[in-house]
Amino acid sequence: MGFCREQLERMRPLWDRMLHHPFLLSTRDGTIARETFGTWMAQDHLFIEAAVPFLGAMIARAPRAHRETLVAAIGALMEELELFRERAEAAGVELEGTEPAFICHAYIQYLHATAARASYPEAFTVLYVAEKAYLESWSVVRAGIERGSPWMPFVENWTSEGFRDYVGWLEAELDRLAADVGGEERSRLERYFERTLKYEIAFWELAVQGARWPGLDEPTADPVSREG
Amino acid sequence: MGFCREQLERMRPLWDRMLHHPFLLSTRDGTIARETFGTWMAQDHLFIEAAVPFLGAMIARAPRAHRETLVAAIGALMEELELFRERAEAAGVELEGTEPAFICHAYIQYLHATAARASYPEAFTVLYVAEKAYLESWSVVRAGIERGSPWMPFVENWTSEGFRDYVGWLEAELDRLAADVGGEERSRLERYFERTLKYEIAFWELAVQGARWPGLDEPTADPVSREG
Amino acid sequence: MGFCREQLERMRPLWDRMLHHPFLLSTRDGTIARETFGTWMAQDHLFIEAAVPFLGAMIARAPRAHRETLVAAIGALMEELELFRERAEAAGVELEGTEPAFICHAYIQYLHATAARASYPEAFTVLYVAEKAYLESWSVVRAGIERGSPWMPFVENWTSEGFRDYVGWLEAELDRLAADVGGEERSRLERYFERTLKYEIAFWELAVQGARWPGLDEPTADPVSREG
Amino acid sequence: MGFCREQLERMRPLWDRMLHHPFLLSTRDGTIARETFGTWMAQDHLFIEAAVPFLGAMIARAPRAHRETLVAAIGALMEELELFRERAEAAGVELEGTEPAFICHAYIQYLHATAARASYPEAFTVLYVAEKAYLESWSVVRAGIERGSPWMPFVENWTSEGFRDYVGWLEAELDRLAADVGGEERSRLERYFERTLKYEIAFWELAVQGARWPGLDEPTADPVSREG
Repeated sequence: MGFCREQLERMRPLWDRMLHHPFLLSTRDGTIARETFGTWMAQDHLFIEAAVPFLGAMIARAPRAHRETLVAAIGALMEELELFRERAEAAGVELEGTEPAFICHAYIQYLHATAARASYPEAFTVLYVAEKAYLESWSVVRAGIERGSPWMPFVENWTSEGFRDYVGWLEAELDRLAADVGGEERSRLERYFERTLKYEIAFWELAVQGARWPGLDEPTADPVSREG
Repeated sequence: MGFCREQLERMRPLWDRMLHHPFLLSTRDGTIARETFGTWMAQDHLFIEAAVPFLGAMIARAPRAHRETLVAAIGALMEELELFRERAEAAGVELEGTEPAFICHAYIQYLHATAARASYPEAFTVLYVAEKAYLESWSVVRAGIERGSPWMPFVENWTSEGFRDYVGWLEAELDRLAADVGGEERSRLERYFERTLKYEIAFWELAVQGARWPGLDEPTADPVSREG
Repeated sequence: MGFCREQLERMRPLWDRMLHHPFLLSTRDGTIARETFGTWMAQDHLFIEAAVPFLGAMIARAPRAHRETLVAAIGALMEELELFRERAEAAGVELEGTEPAFICHAYIQYLHATAARASYPEAFTVLYVAEKAYLESWSVVRAGIERGSPWMPFVENWTSEGFRDYVGWLEAELDRLAADVGGEERSRLERYFERTLKYEIAFWELAVQGARWPGLDEPTADPVSREG
Repeated sequence: MGFCREQLERMRPLWDRMLHHPFLLSTRDGTIARETFGTWMAQDHLFIEAAVPFLGAMIARAPRAHRETLVAAIGALMEELELFRERAEAAGVELEGTEPAFICHAYIQYLHATAARASYPEAFTVLYVAEKAYLESWSVVRAGIERGSPWMPFVENWTSEGFRDYVGWLEAELDRLAADVGGEERSRLERYFERTLKYEIAFWELAVQGARWPGLDEPTADPVSREG
């Protein structure tokens, strides 16, 4: 059994938690508030914009055999950005000038920090988990969403044949990379797998929590009474 | 007027909000719960451990005249880690095996991402704001804390003559760097200044909120009822 | 007058020296030995392969407005690699398994080191000078080469309308970037400009010197008799 | 048998070639021209200055257990720079304003590129080979140099007990790192080992060749007559 399947099984409870996130279920059921979906759109747009330099940094260290696919993946990101702009206009969501929510900003920093500091297999793990999570999350939505939903184009984007093939390639290549690392690096791959999944969950949570920044947009917790 | 003073004035309301954070006031007044202070200790210990590679990355790009001080700053970080271990043992706080809270992890990623991607003056801005914030925050605590408090050694560490000199050096050098950048980079320095301050506030908030991860350690928000 | 024109004038003697390099003139005149051209082909193929991760690293730090063109530039590099493979087969030159000559290896390290450590405008300067040098160098060859020469496709590649437009874009953007940097960074841009030009000259020299490595493939110099 | 011993045996002929380089033998025998030694001094001074950011970048990615020693190694580099300044003044060698020779510049780029792009074990290999080469090279000189030679302090620096211990630590740690990498990375470690050794040889060669830049400070080769 390859690394990816092994990790997906190890992480099953957390992975299922992600797939049952209220954001996904309410988008599937058509009960999600337009404002909530709009929050996600504006923040995910920022995230995808940050994924372009992340992939650039991956190309900077990729083995030759990975380059072509990663370059094509940047192209796909640029088309996704176009999709966001088109959908945002259709739905009256403002993208320009959106400030990143704390969770979005954090996830973007995680991408950049990983690209710069982690080994290539470690960074590849982050890329795989993020894309695999989107394939499966939007497949959940696809199972029940009305064809005429304004959010249908997002569903189609991340459940398309092309995207499925890309995730399949990532999976096969990560299995191959993971099969050739030593024990310490293998442990680190597992940590990156888990952490990326947690960031994915946090990102869905961001959509429903709104774009707060700890200690700024919410009442400050009181350290004295906490134990009282 | 130099860049630092200018930014400190621009950011005054937010800066004051930081200096009045309940974590600081309750530590000053001796009313803070030991568990709350312990949460901060364990997380800040992780943060300082991450500051070592951050400073390493700064040295990797520093002008010659900055190297000696930055190398000395790594030495100071290592002594701080020793202080944490000693205090943790004295106070019965567990440091080993602590998992980073979301906010701590995010701030660490921000450090690493900045070191890797930002220009040297931008990364230097982050370093300055983080150290200046500690000097002033712990000066607030110093003003009222009892001499015999178990947390007094932290106060002494970040309000010492040596630390004050270091922050003074950072301030003078950042003023000098900022005076020689173009208009676009200057705007980015201001953004880094503001963002770092927000991360500092988030970090104090972490101590009182506890080490939660969005969507995992708290009830998930309900996207339907939010607008209801 | 923009930065590029200013630097091209400052560097005129060295730039002309490059444009009159025997490699270019003998390729133009059809007198170049096939083996010599083959040495260049195999080494430049290695260099272009290294330019892919260099551009990836540029994308990792580029402002949004630069991304699309830089992604397209990677695509162009991949087509160049295809051209090399096709020409190598036609001319009986072995590309696979070629070890980098010292000069080629050094220039590649310079690319990677610059991408990782220099500011974005500095790295952009290296990119501009390398591409501008190729546009003008191959324009020299174009002026006299026989249409039926087996090396004509290289000439066409680097003197095409599309390549000219790309270099024009680089020039305009570098002028813009350079207009907004401070005095110290401006000096560094000038140094990068000059150094890259020297590497370009060294690369032409490599073709005619052959792929030697200092102290290994040549008789070692005698330090005693040197002053004798 | 550990990785280091294995590689030292594999590379024995090349390693011996380095240890018998005329620069070392003539320094040992006291026949080296002062100008030749001065060329090396000025260029090695530049190299050591570049090793400081290289070690900074290593600290940026080092496992916790390596940090202390690497920080101490930066301190040792700073003392070496002091030694160079003192010896340069004593011997009338000009250090300030020295431009890097091509070989020196190339080796520095190799350091920086490796620090930025290679895995940590790969970068650690470069560090080990460079330091091990100096320990053994200067041990060759030590075997015959007159105690009163003005170059004796360099010999003492790189054959001291402390330096020997440091190289021993590097060797043990590299053996440990190499024992835990996969097959592909292991092959890359071997390549880095060999390449670094070749750069070391090139650097001794630089001292005796002088600070030329290909195609600039020497007559340009004639591509036509080369095969004639």
